[in-house]
Amino acid sequence: MKAGHLAFLAVAVGSGIAAVAAAADGDADERIASPIYGVTIPEGYRQWELIAPAQEGEPLNELRAVLGNAIAVNAYRDGKLPFPDGTILTKLAWKHVQSPEFESASIPGAATTVQIMVKDSKKYPSTGGWGFGRFVNGKPVDAAQHETCFACHEAS
Amino acid sequence: MKAGHLAFLAVAVGSGIAAVAAAADGDADERIASPIYGVTIPEGYRQWELIAPAQEGEPLNELRAVLGNAIAVNAYRDGKLPFPDGTILTKLAWKHVQSPEFESASIPGAATTVQIMVKDSKKYPSTGGWGFGRFVNGKPVDAAQHETCFACHEAS
Repeated sequence: MKAGHLAFLAVAVGSGIAAVAAAADGDADERIASPIYGVTIPEGYRQWELIAPAQEGEPLNELRAVLGNAIAVNAYRDGKLPFPDGTILTKLAWKHVQSPEFESASIPGAATTVQIMVKDSKKYPSTGGWGFGRFVNGKPVDAAQHETCFACHEAS
Repeated sequence: MKAGHLAFLAVAVGSGIAAVAAAADGDADERIASPIYGVTIPEGYRQWELIAPAQEGEPLNELRAVLGNAIAVNAYRDGKLPFPDGTILTKLAWKHVQSPEFESASIPGAATTVQIMVKDSKKYPSTGGWGFGRFVNGKPVDAAQHETCFACHEAS
């Protein structure tokens, strides 16, 4: 089998990517909290269960995946919504690039952002109980960007 | 926060989907082996670590995610390739549908297939050490379809 160990991933997500796709979470020893909300990138989140993949078109052109901690996944599975305090959801995003092997396929390119939502109804009463963190290379983006989180997440 | 418990997922992957996106794996108690290879859907695979999302264009129009068992993920992370025996990779696929809320976003629709690759160099010497299983609603597709697995997975 030519390049057999990579073949499945090549078909699945293309080669040339860092599969077990590296997220833009920077150094685990240096977890800086987001402005406004004080949300940090949770340890071990990369092992959390997949909730769903997604794709974002122009202008971002990203492939994404949402992972949830056990509280999130159990609540969703059991239909116990709204999400309870302790829920953490993480959205990973990568640039969406053309597979070099398969014309019909798109695969993850460079990691772009890691975005976190933490449910804590006592800590975040003015934003529906949710705190937000948006990270690039492990560093939170600025307060102005964080001020936009709730408006969009409230919109639907 | 209006519809607060769903808002993150709505932004992330759209509403109207069964998040903790249900895979097309049918009944866990009724695991039927694939033709040719005798591969079954592994128990607990839905909790495995995400390797990467992907998107497949026309004619399939799917969003996909590849999950790996611990042997697969550790081998990849440690750069110990080709994958050792015991590796199992699972590719989940859903129809790729337009988000009802966000013009730029695509989200998982109906689950379509669950596809499994098992590395066992003694059992599958003629296909590079890999056995294949392609499942729709938990049932393996026919032998003719399974005969096509290796040619494509060998191609890159």
